[in-house]
Amino acid sequence: MSKGLLIAVSGFSGSGKGTLMKKVLEMYPNYALSVSATTRRPRPGEREGVEYFFKTKEEFEELIDNDELIEYAKYVDNYYGTPKAYVEQMLDEGRDVILEIEVQGALQVKKKIPGLVLIFITAPSLAELKRRFAERGTETEENIRKRIEQIEREFESMMNYEYILENDDLDECAAAFHGIVQAEHKKLINQKEFIQKISEEFGGKI
Amino acid sequence: MSKGLLIAVSGFSGSGKGTLMKKVLEMYPNYALSVSATTRRPRPGEREGVEYFFKTKEEFEELIDNDELIEYAKYVDNYYGTPKAYVEQMLDEGRDVILEIEVQGALQVKKKIPGLVLIFITAPSLAELKRRFAERGTETEENIRKRIEQIEREFESMMNYEYILENDDLDECAAAFHGIVQAEHKKLINQKEFIQKISEEFGGKI
Repeated sequence: MSKGLLIAVSGFSGSGKGTLMKKVLEMYPNYALSVSATTRRPRPGEREGVEYFFKTKEEFEELIDNDELIEYAKYVDNYYGTPKAYVEQMLDEGRDVILEIEVQGALQVKKKIPGLVLIFITAPSLAELKRRFAERGTETEENIRKRIEQIEREFESMMNYEYILENDDLDECAAAFHGIVQAEHKKLINQKEFIQKISEEFGGKI
Repeated sequence: MSKGLLIAVSGFSGSGKGTLMKKVLEMYPNYALSVSATTRRPRPGEREGVEYFFKTKEEFEELIDNDELIEYAKYVDNYYGTPKAYVEQMLDEGRDVILEIEVQGALQVKKKIPGLVLIFITAPSLAELKRRFAERGTETEENIRKRIEQIEREFESMMNYEYILENDDLDECAAAFHGIVQAEHKKLINQKEFIQKISEEFGGKI
């Protein structure tokens, strides 16, 4: 069995990437979603170990010190990070593992793991992003201002991503996401076993 | 309308890439197949301007001298090349243009056009390649020996390709081919217009 692919999914605040990932997991069986650790407080309905592992600042810094995170980042005064063990287990089982992480975290992982597939989710327009963000209705004025600045920074970071997906129609976007991952599986670098097989057929001459 | 993508398709002799490309053109409307020029003699049923533009050696060398070819290569004592004008017209019309060319030609184009998508078609095994080649039944002993040597060279060249497609089931392989091209359209480098649009929404600040 060949190893799974590691996929980093980032996107503008309000791009609906969380909903999109739920849809992908629902439509296609081979994905596993990495569960992040964070120091931010749970939002209503969020469950420990499902949406996040909720940690205190001290607990999180211990994970950092023990090298138990693939990446971590500080974002609007909170830590976010990806515990290593779960991801490695899923990849070994041949699952394609989705890291739903912030831009700084994704670029950090890319440096360590060049095979990482970088996908950035965007809304069709900035107006649409603002509309979606306002709808959420849980944010203070100060946070809204911070988020707009953040979107500007995210736009610049987006230019480091390999794939850009416009999340307009949810089903279409989920299918396009899956299509990208299937295409990545066809890359030479991800077909070492097949190449090995053909090489052996030539009696190892090649 | 955004420009089409240029796709070079190569493969082992006997990988069935010609049949595969016919299937792709039949299943999906947006592709255009580039028609190559060659100095080799027509096989039974091949038509001028459909399978190839058949040229004399002198005519072909004139195309080279006038820089009217994107690439050309000499292969089993014959020239093969890609006339430039038709390809550029199709790309401008937003069609995805398939170059079904030999390995040396594809790598030549990649140097000139970095956005070229390189796809290599292979049979599931070397035994299957030999079986398919024998079935054709139009080749001399000498040519068969040359082709085997060629397959060995092709295997080495394959390592320069980005995508490897195993042509086992024709329909599945055609769908996978289309999937790769759709994924390529989602790449940042192929979405300049969308990025321009978002940048303008930020009032050109980004």
